[in-house]
Formats: sequence, C-alpha cells, structure tokens
Amino acid sequence: MELKRISRAMPYRGKVFDLIVDEVEYPSGATGIREIAHHPGGAAVVPITDGNDVVLIEQLRYPFANRLLELPAGKLAPGEDPAVAGARELQEETGLVAARLEKLLSIYTTPGFCDEVIHLFLATGLSISSRGTAREEGESSMTVHRFPLEKALAMIGTGEIRDAKTIIGLTAAQQQLHQSRSSS
Amino acid sequence: MELKRISRAMPYRGKVFDLIVDEVEYPSGATGIREIAHHPGGAAVVPITDGNDVVLIEQLRYPFANRLLELPAGKLAPGEDPAVAGARELQEETGLVAARLEKLLSIYTTPGFCDEVIHLFLATGLSISSRGTAREEGESSMTVHRFPLEKALAMIGTGEIRDAKTIIGLTAAQQQLHQSRSSS
Repeated sequence: MELKRISRAMPYRGKVFDLIVDEVEYPSGATGIREIAHHPGGAAVVPITDGNDVVLIEQLRYPFANRLLELPAGKLAPGEDPAVAGARELQEETGLVAARLEKLLSIYTTPGFCDEVIHLFLATGLSISSRGTAREEGESSMTVHRFPLEKALAMIGTGEIRDAKTIIGLTAAQQQLHQSRSSS
Repeated sequence: MELKRISRAMPYRGKVFDLIVDEVEYPSGATGIREIAHHPGGAAVVPITDGNDVVLIEQLRYPFANRLLELPAGKLAPGEDPAVAGARELQEETGLVAARLEKLLSIYTTPGFCDEVIHLFLATGLSISSRGTAREEGESSMTVHRFPLEKALAMIGTGEIRDAKTIIGLTAAQQQLHQSRSSS
C-alpha cells in the first residue's frame, strides 16, 4: 500500500453502511484523510424468462426522491454466499425462483470512497415461488415489471434505466445469453 | 414521495461525501431511518485515440487497498458543467485534451444509499496538452495506460476492470463509435 494508515475512527455505524475515517500518511510524509462508506456488499440478479423478457423491480430510492427501475438485489448477510443472497432477493422481491443461477461479474460501484462489491448473476428457468414475495417495510410500494430484454437495453440509452448495477447486469446478461446460444 | 421526512441530521461533513441521516415515516405510520452518502456528483471520460485505443488510469483505491484501472474522472465543483469537469480531469490525469466531447450517459452508482450521479463522456480527437498533467497529493502514483478498446472490453470479463463507471463507459463508447461509423 502506498499510504500508511495512522489512525482509524468510525464516527457512524449505520443500518446500510458504516462511516470509516482514516488518517493516512503519503510517501512524501504529508498526511491526509480517507473516508470510506463501508458496505457489506450485495448480490443482484438478472432474471430472464424463456421468452427473453427481463423482470425488473421499481421502487422508491430515497436519495433521489424518485422511483427507479432496477434488478432484484440486496445486501449480503455476514459470510453469506452471494448466489444464496441473489436467489433470496429474487424470491423476496419478485416471487420467482430460478432453476439456474450463473455468475456474470463482480463490480465495484464507486471505489473512490466506498468498498461495496456487487455480485451479478443471470437467473434462468424461472418459475413462481409457492412462498410468494416477502418485502420489508419500506419495500411495500415495490412493483414488478417485465420487459423484452432488447427493450430494457434501449431504456439505458433513453435514461429510463440509470442504476449502474442494472446497466451492467443487462449488458452482461445479453452477452452471456448470446454466447450460450451461439455455442449450443 | 411515499415517505415523509420527520427530521434530518448531518453527523459528518466530509472531504468526498457528507453523511445525512433522516428519520422518515412510512405510509403505515411506522417510522424508520434513511442514510445517505451525499456526494456532489462527478464526470468521467472515455478517451479514444484515432487508432481506437482507450486511455485508462491506474491508481490506488484506498477502500480496496488495491490499484484499479478506471476512466479519468473526478468530482464536480459546485454548479460546474459536467463536460467542463470531464475535460479538466482528462487533462489533469492524463495530460490529454480532446477536440470532441460527446455525452454518453448519466448513471447512479449506488442509489440505495448514495445520491452520486456520474456523467459519462466520449472524448475523441485527442492531443497532448501543453500544460501536462496536474495531479493532487495522493494521485502522485497514478499511471496512464493505453489499451485497444476491444482488449479493455475483454478485461471486464476477466475481472481486470471492475469499476462500474468504467465498465459502463467502455460499453457505451463502443456502441456510440459503432453507430457513428455505421452512419458516416
């Protein structure tokens, strides 16, 4: 590491993330601070139906005071396998279960100040869960939408889809589906 | 808005982001909190040479204790035009100036708890700035790399590129270049 940590403070422990503030020393001997929004990481799922539709959720995102279209996703529990978390969030948010879950990518959402990693999965062989959905308080107004994958990809260009994990997941899923269809 | 804000606190004012903690009331009457990492937003640039190479920077990202490959990028000054910020960061971090800067997309990096928006631009017609680079303390170990765009896109699949804005910018730049070449 090119920076030496001199001290660490955690001025806030949150529900979604903790705030870490480190004092660091540069190679020059000067000192500075580094702020980290410390997040447990998450899993997000691109659910694709046999008819090549994608299932997205629409929910209020408080930082933007707006409803956004996103992949089903959620935080990892401590030590949780990301694929298990992805399957759980898919079921809880959409009421669907997937016969197949394939890893796509792991991404860093905003690595300048946040250690969040999101693990992205392609979910196929979808069926309706006997358990239905199970949403948390604050997710009660979540709605489920279904779009042809091509339409969802076009909604990136129009700005109707702006969430980074969703943009990356849709693009990677299309590539993955294209490759597996070409090779079969 | 489906949530009513009852109170707002700002327990930390940071160098990169501020922490906002709101108490909110759900439609049910129950209360909860919402934490926001409040960020001024940023601009990122996909610099593409006439030979279809992309210029990326490699720098230490403290939250991951690791060096990452990313697009040239930086925070917006208050009220700053994102295109101006993008051109400035390109020059400061790579020493390049662009004859053309085209808007690609605006993305939300992690909208569940952060209001950061990153504005992405395609930069072409690159030349070497007479002013060279101008890096801040803590950016002194930044290095500049050049890859064929196709190679950089392949590095997403291998995990060598994991930063969300960089993945989205590379993919959107390829589409944009493909479209403008098809139509000319």
